[in-house]
Amino acid sequence: MGRNVYQFTISTKEKQSFTNLDTYLKRALSDSGVNDGIMVVYCPHTTGAITINENADPDVKIDSHLGLNETFPNKTEYIYMEGNSDGHMKSSVIGASETLIIEDGSILLGTWQSVYFTEFDGPRTRTIYPACNGQ
Amino acid sequence: MGRNVYQFTISTKEKQSFTNLDTYLKRALSDSGVNDGIMVVYCPHTTGAITINENADPDVKIDSHLGLNETFPNKTEYIYMEGNSDGHMKSSVIGASETLIIEDGSILLGTWQSVYFTEFDGPRTRTIYPACNGQ
Amino acid sequence: MGRNVYQFTISTKEKQSFTNLDTYLKRALSDSGVNDGIMVVYCPHTTGAITINENADPDVKIDSHLGLNETFPNKTEYIYMEGNSDGHMKSSVIGASETLIIEDGSILLGTWQSVYFTEFDGPRTRTIYPACNGQ
Repeated sequence: MGRNVYQFTISTKEKQSFTNLDTYLKRALSDSGVNDGIMVVYCPHTTGAITINENADPDVKIDSHLGLNETFPNKTEYIYMEGNSDGHMKSSVIGASETLIIEDGSILLGTWQSVYFTEFDGPRTRTIYPACNGQ
Repeated sequence: MGRNVYQFTISTKEKQSFTNLDTYLKRALSDSGVNDGIMVVYCPHTTGAITINENADPDVKIDSHLGLNETFPNKTEYIYMEGNSDGHMKSSVIGASETLIIEDGSILLGTWQSVYFTEFDGPRTRTIYPACNGQ
Repeated sequence: MGRNVYQFTISTKEKQSFTNLDTYLKRALSDSGVNDGIMVVYCPHTTGAITINENADPDVKIDSHLGLNETFPNKTEYIYMEGNSDGHMKSSVIGASETLIIEDGSILLGTWQSVYFTEFDGPRTRTIYPACNGQ
């Protein structure tokens, strides 16, 4: 069984943002030589997350920021001294990873899907681990 | 290592709905011959998602629709021209996949659990990919 | 390919709580002998979930409880007779599992990350299944 854990870093520029990871993931998969199996894309941070969203019209991301901020606001009742409890909440809800299917040497994604790192307490330097499992 | 990606389509009938996928997943697992490993159930759409919820009392699904719609409403401030930003939001929060454990040729689910496709912008024809990895 | 499904039970003490699972997961991984691969941590209950959150300052968990309860309240319009539809909602949003990367015989977690069972309808006795896949 082939299996490879990769690591790359990205720099986020704003408090909350989406970074498209597709190019990094394709490069890791190509290097791994895995043709069939799964890829786990893992985020080791507690104020960031991995998600899949539309990659075509940027308005979807603008609306997603608005929706996330209004649904999970930074409440005045929050007591955590770092003041980023809203980011921990979003991170837990969106989730630390995505698991993708690898088929014939490609990541199986829908036509409009891309994989994103979502920053909830930037700007920061962030690490992402894609791991390829298969043959 | 045995590994098989399957594909099936479902037709959703309403704007928002839950479709039980258990029968499709059992059939894919049986055909794959995988006895021990994992199954990734993947949704390639950005206004749908895969989730696990109670399969007994249908009132749980009625309440879930109400809760999702009130927590993630289609806001008037949303700018995306297709008008389904609430669906993208729900899709990102519920998630594009579920990863299940395969043990002794069966999917390990709790007594009350079933796997559902959740439609957030129907009615539409949707594709689901279950992938079995193991031996 | 090594693969092992483990099972352990925990007792939750309150209506809503976080239980740190790291010790259980490390023990399962050590027993499995898997060095490289993935671990799926699965919750077979529909009013509980698995999540990854900060393990250092307990205030993060206090804020998370407040945030979850205000964002997904137990609405008076809910009709399900068991009265725990808010728990089903949170379970679906947080998710029934986490998929972790195993590298060099260890679970790849960020410095501040731990894996938690989140109880949404306690106190109860709960079962958790960690499954190690790899070599």
